[in-house]
Amino acid sequence: MKADLDNLMAARGFDALVVLGPAAENHALHYLANGAKISDGILLKKRGEAPLLVCSPMERDEAAKSGLPLATHNDFDLHKLIQEKGSYFEAEVHMLAALFERQGVAGTVSFYGLGDPGQSYMMLSRLAEICPALRIVGETETTVFDEAYTTKDPAELAAIKSVAARTNTVMAEAVDFLKSHKAQEGRLVKADGDPLTIGEVKRFVRGRLLDYDLEDSEMIFAIGRDAGVPHSRGEADDPLALGRSIIFDLFPRELGGGYYHDMTRTFCLGYAPPEVKEVYDQVMFAFHAVMETLAVGEKAASYQALVNDIFESQGHPTTRSHPGTVEGYVHSLGHGLGLQIHSRPRFSPVSEDAVEPGQVFTVEPGLYYPERGYGVRIEDTVYVDEAGAIHSLTPFPKDLVIPVEGR
Amino acid sequence: MKADLDNLMAARGFDALVVLGPAAENHALHYLANGAKISDGILLKKRGEAPLLVCSPMERDEAAKSGLPLATHNDFDLHKLIQEKGSYFEAEVHMLAALFERQGVAGTVSFYGLGDPGQSYMMLSRLAEICPALRIVGETETTVFDEAYTTKDPAELAAIKSVAARTNTVMAEAVDFLKSHKAQEGRLVKADGDPLTIGEVKRFVRGRLLDYDLEDSEMIFAIGRDAGVPHSRGEADDPLALGRSIIFDLFPRELGGGYYHDMTRTFCLGYAPPEVKEVYDQVMFAFHAVMETLAVGEKAASYQALVNDIFESQGHPTTRSHPGTVEGYVHSLGHGLGLQIHSRPRFSPVSEDAVEPGQVFTVEPGLYYPERGYGVRIEDTVYVDEAGAIHSLTPFPKDLVIPVEGR
Repeated sequence: MKADLDNLMAARGFDALVVLGPAAENHALHYLANGAKISDGILLKKRGEAPLLVCSPMERDEAAKSGLPLATHNDFDLHKLIQEKGSYFEAEVHMLAALFERQGVAGTVSFYGLGDPGQSYMMLSRLAEICPALRIVGETETTVFDEAYTTKDPAELAAIKSVAARTNTVMAEAVDFLKSHKAQEGRLVKADGDPLTIGEVKRFVRGRLLDYDLEDSEMIFAIGRDAGVPHSRGEADDPLALGRSIIFDLFPRELGGGYYHDMTRTFCLGYAPPEVKEVYDQVMFAFHAVMETLAVGEKAASYQALVNDIFESQGHPTTRSHPGTVEGYVHSLGHGLGLQIHSRPRFSPVSEDAVEPGQVFTVEPGLYYPERGYGVRIEDTVYVDEAGAIHSLTPFPKDLVIPVEGR
Repeated sequence: MKADLDNLMAARGFDALVVLGPAAENHALHYLANGAKISDGILLKKRGEAPLLVCSPMERDEAAKSGLPLATHNDFDLHKLIQEKGSYFEAEVHMLAALFERQGVAGTVSFYGLGDPGQSYMMLSRLAEICPALRIVGETETTVFDEAYTTKDPAELAAIKSVAARTNTVMAEAVDFLKSHKAQEGRLVKADGDPLTIGEVKRFVRGRLLDYDLEDSEMIFAIGRDAGVPHSRGEADDPLALGRSIIFDLFPRELGGGYYHDMTRTFCLGYAPPEVKEVYDQVMFAFHAVMETLAVGEKAASYQALVNDIFESQGHPTTRSHPGTVEGYVHSLGHGLGLQIHSRPRFSPVSEDAVEPGQVFTVEPGLYYPERGYGVRIEDTVYVDEAGAIHSLTPFPKDLVIPVEGR
């Protein structure tokens, strides 16, 4: 959690860290600047001190919402620097150097945030040149933020639980919306007899999310073959056919940026074909096997292995038995989430992460057969409490079939 | 426009360019991969050739929507590379090197996209190490994308005009929404007599945007003192008081990412205080002065100078006469927009950009007096046609006062 940052920096020998970029989509800036919505910021945190936030004077009000000590570009005469140095790039690098000098930054400085990769490369190379006494670095694998994010403090947990409850409500409203349509000629139709489309379902869901101060981040609502391709989002013009598997993966976050919830249900409208029902039961078996054995101290990768064992014993290919397969079990069991939709703990076979108190992560086994026209995934987000007990934050029922009127 | 990219690359001596990162918020990837919504991609474009898109096999369906030739991580045995190299970071760098070798990339390769600045620095430094024959660079000022974006091709223009028309419609609906409320004790109230709040207005507007397949990107709806701070977004709990300036800056984009429109109106509910009315007329004078003189070939900075001249002659401080001022005229006259909300042409005093056919940019003079409790800004987005004629894409009327019932 946030309180661990100084220790995490010390363990890596970092004397300061810098977060660059706009607040939008910038989880590290959101985390340290407490959600202040500035469009371009420099956050400097010396180890053992509160962060300092530097922004444009135009954004001083939004920046003040961070509750952090502030400086603006005026404090560094950015206008003058641009004229002196002849380019915004050089001016910005020199403003960083001046900031380090003013704040007495020495030693190793590690950079984070959001930017153009090529520009970041040029900027930090140049900064290393004009500040030869500093060691300028970035982190290539698990960062101090990744580690801090792994356990949530009470304020974060409260936000996460609130987003979870609202997302479950919207899932329920979406199912009610589907049920409010009758079937004709094997698909759902609207009052005027026209087929209901996936695009219309998504529009309904986005509107409902907004009513709960949540925003969609490209939900997956995919039917038939598309449900067999894990990241296929579904085709807007497709009708809602009965008896085909629908994967509905809803992972909204707080409006304007913030914490995520992530849940998936697989539905069949009207009835489920026997093959889909069988695979569904197998996925549910794997899901329960994981939920019943999740325990603090165990490696996340061990649950990935468990699910591989289960699916392989049922005769399904997996990425372990058939590397690169696009049929069967083709992804990781889950992922941590918070201000990012994907964070630690990681469940990949090479992950060293263990289950720990304070974590929030998904459990989402799935089986995919695009050529046979279906896919199945079930996903809850779970929280590990202080005592190590596992709590699902996704109470919405796991019924495969949504009964509909008509056929 | 996109067709200019090869020439722009040649002018800089780039043999290839690479765009990294997720599609979300990644304008360069959106531009070259035609909006395909992948969560992690490598796009490689050799000069004179169509781009190649590399993604996870899970995302092959979304990637195919780009219409580009595709490869997946399986083509580079990423699974094996991760095990061999012992880290995802090393595996990714070596996958890039293998991609360059397979595609016969030589010479100078420039990088773009979206990433963690520190990680990008480490990754491109390492890539330069393991590919000593390549020159790895990024662009620090005006990039090939910045230049290509500056003129829009017909397909882009059609998208931009459509977003503009829908945004103007939502602005009109927002004003109707305000007018549908009566005033009591100097502020708008709802049917139940409770004050209408800024948060409720924003919620209404977000819902309407969604109905037109647009998404909000943190609109500004700021009243009184907050209107005097250009990037203050407004306080959700504030009531809609009569007789105070409201800056409503609406800049949504296509749902899920795409082209922006950007427009601002300043309103007073019920009546306008004489001081606000006078300043409003001064801003409108500057706005018209610019619109009437905008001409192809003229420097954008010359219009910034013109507006400085006008406001200074009216007795207002500007960032030219009073560097760092937070009163008077405190920002640039406008900015290009497209897939980014801020792009070329730039109107800052040091900009070398000229007005050219095919450009789309904002014209947005404003005057700010936070301590006197008001701010005024008027903004249209304009398009320069092939013949050099200037067309506003923001026909919504510019009336300061919104009449309301009651007081």
